Amino acid sequence: MSAVDVGVLDPATPHAADAVSDAAYAAAMVDVELALVRALVAVGAGPDAALDEGWAADAVDVAAVAAGARASGNPVVPLLAQLRAAAPSAVRDVLHLGATSQDVLDSATMLVAARTRRAVERALEPALAGLAALADRHRATPAVGRTLGQQAAPTVFGMRLAVLLDGVRRAALHLGALPLPAQLGGSVGTLAVLTDLLGADRADAVRRRFADELGLAFRSTVWQVERGPVAELGAALAVLIGALGRLGLEVVQGSRAELGELALGLGADEGGSSAMPQKRNPVPAILLVAAARRAPGLAATLLGAQLALDDRPPGDWHAEWQPLRELLRLGLESAELAAEVVASLDADPERLRAHLGDGRGAVHAERAQWALVPELGRGRAQELVRGALAADEFVPALLAQLADEPAAADRVRAVTDPSAPVGLTGRMIDAVIGGES
Amino acid sequence: MSAVDVGVLDPATPHAADAVSDAAYAAAMVDVELALVRALVAVGAGPDAALDEGWAADAVDVAAVAAGARASGNPVVPLLAQLRAAAPSAVRDVLHLGATSQDVLDSATMLVAARTRRAVERALEPALAGLAALADRHRATPAVGRTLGQQAAPTVFGMRLAVLLDGVRRAALHLGALPLPAQLGGSVGTLAVLTDLLGADRADAVRRRFADELGLAFRSTVWQVERGPVAELGAALAVLIGALGRLGLEVVQGSRAELGELALGLGADEGGSSAMPQKRNPVPAILLVAAARRAPGLAATLLGAQLALDDRPPGDWHAEWQPLRELLRLGLESAELAAEVVASLDADPERLRAHLGDGRGAVHAERAQWALVPELGRGRAQELVRGALAADEFVPALLAQLADEPAAADRVRAVTDPSAPVGLTGRMIDAVIGGES
Amino acid sequence: MSAVDVGVLDPATPHAADAVSDAAYAAAMVDVELALVRALVAVGAGPDAALDEGWAADAVDVAAVAAGARASGNPVVPLLAQLRAAAPSAVRDVLHLGATSQDVLDSATMLVAARTRRAVERALEPALAGLAALADRHRATPAVGRTLGQQAAPTVFGMRLAVLLDGVRRAALHLGALPLPAQLGGSVGTLAVLTDLLGADRADAVRRRFADELGLAFRSTVWQVERGPVAELGAALAVLIGALGRLGLEVVQGSRAELGELALGLGADEGGSSAMPQKRNPVPAILLVAAARRAPGLAATLLGAQLALDDRPPGDWHAEWQPLRELLRLGLESAELAAEVVASLDADPERLRAHLGDGRGAVHAERAQWALVPELGRGRAQELVRGALAADEFVPALLAQLADEPAAADRVRAVTDPSAPVGLTGRMIDAVIGGES
Amino acid sequence: MSAVDVGVLDPATPHAADAVSDAAYAAAMVDVELALVRALVAVGAGPDAALDEGWAADAVDVAAVAAGARASGNPVVPLLAQLRAAAPSAVRDVLHLGATSQDVLDSATMLVAARTRRAVERALEPALAGLAALADRHRATPAVGRTLGQQAAPTVFGMRLAVLLDGVRRAALHLGALPLPAQLGGSVGTLAVLTDLLGADRADAVRRRFADELGLAFRSTVWQVERGPVAELGAALAVLIGALGRLGLEVVQGSRAELGELALGLGADEGGSSAMPQKRNPVPAILLVAAARRAPGLAATLLGAQLALDDRPPGDWHAEWQPLRELLRLGLESAELAAEVVASLDADPERLRAHLGDGRGAVHAERAQWALVPELGRGRAQELVRGALAADEFVPALLAQLADEPAAADRVRAVTDPSAPVGLTGRMIDAVIGGES
Repeated sequence: MSAVDVGVLDPATPHAADAVSDAAYAAAMVDVELALVRALVAVGAGPDAALDEGWAADAVDVAAVAAGARASGNPVVPLLAQLRAAAPSAVRDVLHLGATSQDVLDSATMLVAARTRRAVERALEPALAGLAALADRHRATPAVGRTLGQQAAPTVFGMRLAVLLDGVRRAALHLGALPLPAQLGGSVGTLAVLTDLLGADRADAVRRRFADELGLAFRSTVWQVERGPVAELGAALAVLIGALGRLGLEVVQGSRAELGELALGLGADEGGSSAMPQKRNPVPAILLVAAARRAPGLAATLLGAQLALDDRPPGDWHAEWQPLRELLRLGLESAELAAEVVASLDADPERLRAHLGDGRGAVHAERAQWALVPELGRGRAQELVRGALAADEFVPALLAQLADEPAAADRVRAVTDPSAPVGLTGRMIDAVIGGES
Repeated sequence: MSAVDVGVLDPATPHAADAVSDAAYAAAMVDVELALVRALVAVGAGPDAALDEGWAADAVDVAAVAAGARASGNPVVPLLAQLRAAAPSAVRDVLHLGATSQDVLDSATMLVAARTRRAVERALEPALAGLAALADRHRATPAVGRTLGQQAAPTVFGMRLAVLLDGVRRAALHLGALPLPAQLGGSVGTLAVLTDLLGADRADAVRRRFADELGLAFRSTVWQVERGPVAELGAALAVLIGALGRLGLEVVQGSRAELGELALGLGADEGGSSAMPQKRNPVPAILLVAAARRAPGLAATLLGAQLALDDRPPGDWHAEWQPLRELLRLGLESAELAAEVVASLDADPERLRAHLGDGRGAVHAERAQWALVPELGRGRAQELVRGALAADEFVPALLAQLADEPAAADRVRAVTDPSAPVGLTGRMIDAVIGGES
Repeated sequence: MSAVDVGVLDPATPHAADAVSDAAYAAAMVDVELALVRALVAVGAGPDAALDEGWAADAVDVAAVAAGARASGNPVVPLLAQLRAAAPSAVRDVLHLGATSQDVLDSATMLVAARTRRAVERALEPALAGLAALADRHRATPAVGRTLGQQAAPTVFGMRLAVLLDGVRRAALHLGALPLPAQLGGSVGTLAVLTDLLGADRADAVRRRFADELGLAFRSTVWQVERGPVAELGAALAVLIGALGRLGLEVVQGSRAELGELALGLGADEGGSSAMPQKRNPVPAILLVAAARRAPGLAATLLGAQLALDDRPPGDWHAEWQPLRELLRLGLESAELAAEVVASLDADPERLRAHLGDGRGAVHAERAQWALVPELGRGRAQELVRGALAADEFVPALLAQLADEPAAADRVRAVTDPSAPVGLTGRMIDAVIGGES
Repeated sequence: MSAVDVGVLDPATPHAADAVSDAAYAAAMVDVELALVRALVAVGAGPDAALDEGWAADAVDVAAVAAGARASGNPVVPLLAQLRAAAPSAVRDVLHLGATSQDVLDSATMLVAARTRRAVERALEPALAGLAALADRHRATPAVGRTLGQQAAPTVFGMRLAVLLDGVRRAALHLGALPLPAQLGGSVGTLAVLTDLLGADRADAVRRRFADELGLAFRSTVWQVERGPVAELGAALAVLIGALGRLGLEVVQGSRAELGELALGLGADEGGSSAMPQKRNPVPAILLVAAARRAPGLAATLLGAQLALDDRPPGDWHAEWQPLRELLRLGLESAELAAEVVASLDADPERLRAHLGDGRGAVHAERAQWALVPELGRGRAQELVRGALAADEFVPALLAQLADEPAAADRVRAVTDPSAPVGLTGRMIDAVIGGES
C-alpha cells in the first residue's frame, strides 16, 4: 500500500503534517500503552522492571500497523502485537492490562490533540502579538467601513484588525479551555478486569494515574460511546480555523489590485504561477481560506458521530478518526499560516484613506444627518441630507444648504473630517489589545 | 404569502415552535429597540417620557414585517417603520438611535437564544433527574455490554444510563456557560453616531447599559463580522441535540421486539399507524433521532458563516438566520422530547438479564481469562480459554478444564456470576449522579 | 402553536414561500390520497361515485394537521382522519386503501418537488435568456481576468457571463432530468393488502396508474427505505443553488465601489438601510449568496439520511422533511432572485476596460512572452519579460528592448492590444449561447 | 515532512488507498502534461520527437513535489519544474504550452476520478451479482417487515435485498453517467496563448484532442471557476457510498446476537478484539457504515466550493482537493468492502422466519383486517381486529370471533399463513434482478 497523503494535495506547513501523521498517531499509541504500564506499576500491579521503556523506541513499524489494521478494523490490534513481540517479559505481562483497543486509540487521539493544541498555541503567539501591534499602529488610520459589500461609513483600519484579533483569541481560548480526557474503561467501559485483579481502590487509582501520566484530563466515567469530547473538540477547532480563515479572506480581498489596501510581502519563490510571469499570489492567505472552507464539513461529521449506539459504537467511532485528524492538521496549518500572513502583512494607509475619500462623499451621510438632528430635528435633517445626496458631492452640497446654520455646519464639518477620531474605536482597540473579554 | 411552517413537517412540541416563531423574533426585536431607548434615557440622551412602552404592545404586524423584509433584505427596516409609526414622539426621537439593523437582529437573536436556553434548562431538569433515578435504580441490573454491535462483556444497565446522563449534562453545562452577547456597534461597528452625539463616556455607558437591560453579555468590541458567538452557540446546541439523540437511538433500538429491553409507555393516542392497527411506534424517541440527524448540517452552515468579509458581511450573515433558529427549535424540542421519553421509559430487568445469560456464555471469556492469569500465566490462560470457546457452553467447559485448579476455578466462578458487582460501575454511577466532572 | 415561519427570517420571494408551505404540502397529500382513489376506481376496486372530489376542497385544516402530527410522528395520520370525516361513504371505503403514511408523504413530497421544479424552470427562463443576451452583448468588452484574487490576463466580460450561464443551465438540466418517483408500497413495501384484495395484476396496475395520475415517475420497486431519490434531488438542488449563488457573489463583488464593474438597478424602495441614508445594498444578489451558503448543509443531511435501517426507517426519514423543503424553497427563491438580478444588471464597460488597462501593464506578460518564443526562444523571451516586469510600465519597457526585433515587437503589439479578440472566447461564448454541451 | 496518511486511521482496502494516493495524482498530472504535448504535436505545433515519453517514467519525485507545493500553493509548479529538468529539449519546448496549473490539476483529478470509477465498477460487479443471487435465493424466505424500529407486517427477505440492490445499482449508474470533463483554458480560461500561437482552429483542435487523449469528456467551455462537475461528482459518490453504507448497517444490525438473522463468514484473523477473546466483529460491514457517515460532510464541502469568484477562484478551488480525494477513496473502499460483505454474507432462514412468528401474532393484523373488509365492512373489521389485538395471540383470537363467518375466517387464514407469497414481492424482486428501472 502506498502512502495516500504525503502533502501533494495539502501544501501544509511541515509541522502540521508531522503533528498528525500516522507516525505521530502510532507514537502516541505507544505512549498510551506505556503510560498504562507505569500506572499499573504505580499501584503495585507490575514489577519496577516494567518501567524500562527503551525497547519501545523502534518496536513499531507504522506501515505494518496500517496493513494489519484492516483485519480487526483498528490499528491497535496489530500495533499491540508488535509491542508484545518486542517487549521484555516483565512488560509483556502487564501490557494493555485491562484496556481495550478503543481506550488506546481514544487516549492516543487526545494525546495527539493535546500536542497539536500546544503547537497551535505556540504558532498563534506571534500571530496574535502581530495583530495587536498592527491594530495599535493603525488605530488612527482612516478607512472606509463596508457593509453588505458597499461603502458605508468611516472607520479606522485598526478597528478591523482588533475585531479579527478578538475573534481569533477568543476561539483560541475556547479551544485551550476544553478538557481533553484520557479514556480507560476496558472492553465495555466497566473496568471489570482491572477491578477483578486489583480491587476497586487500586483499579480506580490506575485510571487516575493513567490520565496523569498522559497529561490528559481525568473523567469520572467513560466516554467510549458518549462522544461529546470529540464533537466539542472538532467544533472548537472549526471555530478557530474559521476565525483564522477570515484573516485570509480579508487579505485576499484587500490585496486585489483594485483595492490595494493590503499586500503580503512574499518570498522570492512564493506565489508564482505556472503560466503568468508577473503573478504573485497571496498563497498563505489563500490556503487559510481553503482550510476554513473545509472545516465545517469535517466538524459536522464529528457532531453526527455522537449518535452512537451500545457501549462502544459500530462505525460511528471509526467515522471520527480521519475528520478529527484533518481538523487538527488544518488547525495547526492555519495557525502557522496566520503567523506567516501577519508577519508579512503590509497595509497601505494611503489606499485605505483614499477609499474613505477626502471628506466630501456620501459615506458621511449618516453621521452628518445625526449631527443636524439636535438643532434641526430629525425631519429637517433627513430632508437636507436627502437633498445633498442627489448632488455630486455630498458634504459640500450639505454645507451649502447650511449657509444660515453656522453651528450645524460646524458640527457637520467636525464629523466629516476624515482624520478625526471615530466613535469608540480607540476604546475598543485598547480593550482588545488589553485582552478584555 | 402563506405561512411556510406551522408544524406539519416538524411535529415539534408546541413550546419549541413558539419559542422561535417569527412572532417570537419580532417580539425580541421590539424588546431590543426598547432596551436601547431605556439605555439612552439612562444616560440622559432621551426624556423620561420615552420610558412609556405601552404603545409597543400591538405596534408590530408580523406578516407585514415579513412582506417588507424583501426590499431591504432584513426584517428590521420594516419593523422599525412600524414602530416609528406607532411610537409617541418622545420615543420616536431616540428610537434606534445609533443602531443599525444588524445590531437589532443580532441582539434579538441572542435574546431568543437566551430565552430558549432557559426553556431548555427547565425542560432538562426532569429529564436529568429522571435519568439519575433510573441509573440509580438499575445500578445492579445485569446487562450485556455490546461493542461494535456484538455482545462483548457483562455490564449493568445503570452504567449505560449514567454515561448517557453524563453526556447530556455536560452538553447542557457547556451550552449554559456560553456568553450570549448583545450587539451594539452602529452602522460599521464604531458607535460613531452615539459618540458624536453623547461623547465617548456616555456612548460607552449606553452600550453597557443596553446589554444589561437585555440580560445579555457585554462584549468590549463588536461581533458584527466576527461570528464566533453564533458559531459556538450553534455547535453547543448541536452537541446537546446529539447527546439527547443518543437517548432516542438507544430507546428505538432497545424497544425493538427482538431486544425488548426498553419500552415507552405511550399515551392511548400516541404511536399509531395509518396502516397497521397493532403498531405502537416510540414516536418521541424517533423524533429525538431525527433532530440529531439534522443538527450537524445546520451547525456546519453556522461554522461556515464565520468566513465573513468587511465590517458587516454580505450574505454570510443572512445565511445564519434560519439554521440558528432551527437549532434552537431542535434544542428545545429535543429537551422536551427527552423529558417525555425519560418519564415514560420502562426497562425490563428480565430481558436485560436474559441477554447477558445465565453465566455460562462466551461473554465472560475476557474476565475469565484474566482471572486465570495470576495463577496460570497468560499463555496457559489463553490456551484454556480458547479451548473452552470451542465448546458449546464456555464457562462449564472452562471449569471442566480446571478440575485440578480449584482456586482458579473459584476465581472463574466469581467473575462469571451474572449477579456479582461489575468493575467500577458503582463508583462511576455514583460519580455521575453526584455531578462529578 | 404559532406559525414558526411566515418569512421574517427568510425574505423569500412569495412564490417560493407558497410553493413549499405547509398548506402546499397538505394540498399535495390530499392530491395523493385522491390519486390513489382514482387508481383504485380505474381497476374496478372502487365505485365511480368515488371519483367525486368536490368534498375534498375544504376538508383539511392545516393547523389541526400540524397539531395532530405530534402523536403519530407524522402528518398523514391526522390528515387522513380529517379526510375520512369529510369524505362521502363511497370514497371512505377506498380511501388510503393499501397505502401507509409514508407512501402519502413521500409521494406528496415528490409532487411538491415536481411543482416547485416547474416553477424553477419557469423562473430560470428569463434568467438564462438574459444571461445569454448579456454574454452576447459583452462578447468583445475587454476585461481583466482574475485568478486567485489577482489580476492575471486579459479576457472579455462576455466570457465570464457565458461560464456562469453554462453552469446554471447544466445544473438546471441535471435537476430537470431527475426522475421524481411516486411511492406506493403499503406498510412494509410489499403491497400485500392490495394484492390480497385485488390480485397481483390489478395491484400492479394500481401502482402504475397511481404514478401516472400524479404525473410522477413509476419505479418498479419501493424506495421507502432506499432514499436515493431524495438524496439525489437534494444534491441537484444544491448544485443549482450553488451555480446561482455564484451569480450573486459576482454581483456583490463587482458592485463594490472600488470595483464598480457591475451594478443592480434597484427599485426606489430596495436596498435601504436602517442607519445609512445613502446605502443601496444589492439585496437580491446578497440573498442569492445566502441561499447558496445554506444549501450544502441541508444537502448533507439528506445524503446522510440514506443510512436508513429496516423496511421503513426510524428517524432518518423524519430528518429529511425540513431540509428537502428548505432546499426546494431556496431553489425557487434563487431562480427568482437570479431572474431579478439578471433583469436589472448593469455592466460598466468603461470600468471593466479600465481595470484591464491601456495595454501597457504587466497583465499582458504571459501573452507577450509567448509571442516572443517562436522567434527568440523560451529562454530569451523569459529574460526579456523578466526585465520588463521590473520596470514601471511593462509593455513599453518590453518594446524598448525589442528595438532590433521589429517582427517580435509587432507580435507583442498585437497580443497586448486591449481591444483585440481574446483567444477562443468568441467560439466559447457562441457554444454556450447555442446550448452546446 | 512525513507521510500523513499511510492507512493507520483508514484501514482501507489497498486498491482504494493506491487509487488516490499522492503518487497516483502525480502520475495523472504527468499523463496530463504528456497528453497536451501529444495534442500539440497532432496539430503540428510540436515535433514528432516530442512524442518520446520514456524520459517521463522516473522524472517526478513525489515527496519533492509535496515539499515544493507550499510556495506556489499547488503541486503543478514544482512538478512541472521537475518535468522540465528531465525532458528532452524537443519536449521542453512545448511542455505545458498554453496551459495553467489548474488545467493540469483539474484534468489530473478527473483522470484519477475516471480510473477510480472504473475500479469501483469492477468491484461492484460481484457485489451486485451476489446481491441479485441472494435476493433470488431468498425470494420466498419469510421475514418480518419492520418500520420505525417495530415489527410491522410480513415480508420476504429477498425483498429487502432487492431494495438494497436497486439502490446501489441506481447510484452506480448515476455515477457512471456523469461526464468527467478535461480542463484546458489557459491562465484565465480564454486559451489566448494557444490561439495567439496557432490560430483559433488549431487551438480549438488542441483542446478537443487533449480531452480525447485523456479519455475525458470535452466541454465546449471552461469550468475553472464553474465547479459543477466537481460538486456533482462528489454528490454522486456520496449517494453511492450511502447506498453501500446501508448494506453495512443492515449487516451490523442483523448480525447482533439478539437478531441473529445475518452473519459474516469472517476469515480466521478477521474481527478480533484486543480485549475479548470471543469477539468476531463484522469489520467490513462496520467500515461500510463508517464510510457512509463521512461522505456527506465531504460532499457538502464540494457543494459549497461552487461559490467561487473571478475566473479562477482563491481558496475555494484548493478546498476541493482533499474532500474529493477522500470521496473517491471511500467510494472504492466501499465498493470493495461491499463485495467482501456480499461474498461472505450468511442469512439464517430459521431466525428470519422465527421473528415473523408462526402465523399467530399481531404482525398479521393489517392484512387480517383488510381480509375481513369485503364481507364485514370496515367498521366491523376494525372492531374485530381491535378485540383480537387485546388477546395474547392475535390470529387465534380473531378466528375465534369468526366462528360464524367461515369464508372470512378462511380469508384470514390465507393472509396469515407465514409461508404464503407476500404481495407483489415476487414481481418486484424479478424487476430488480432484471435491471428494470
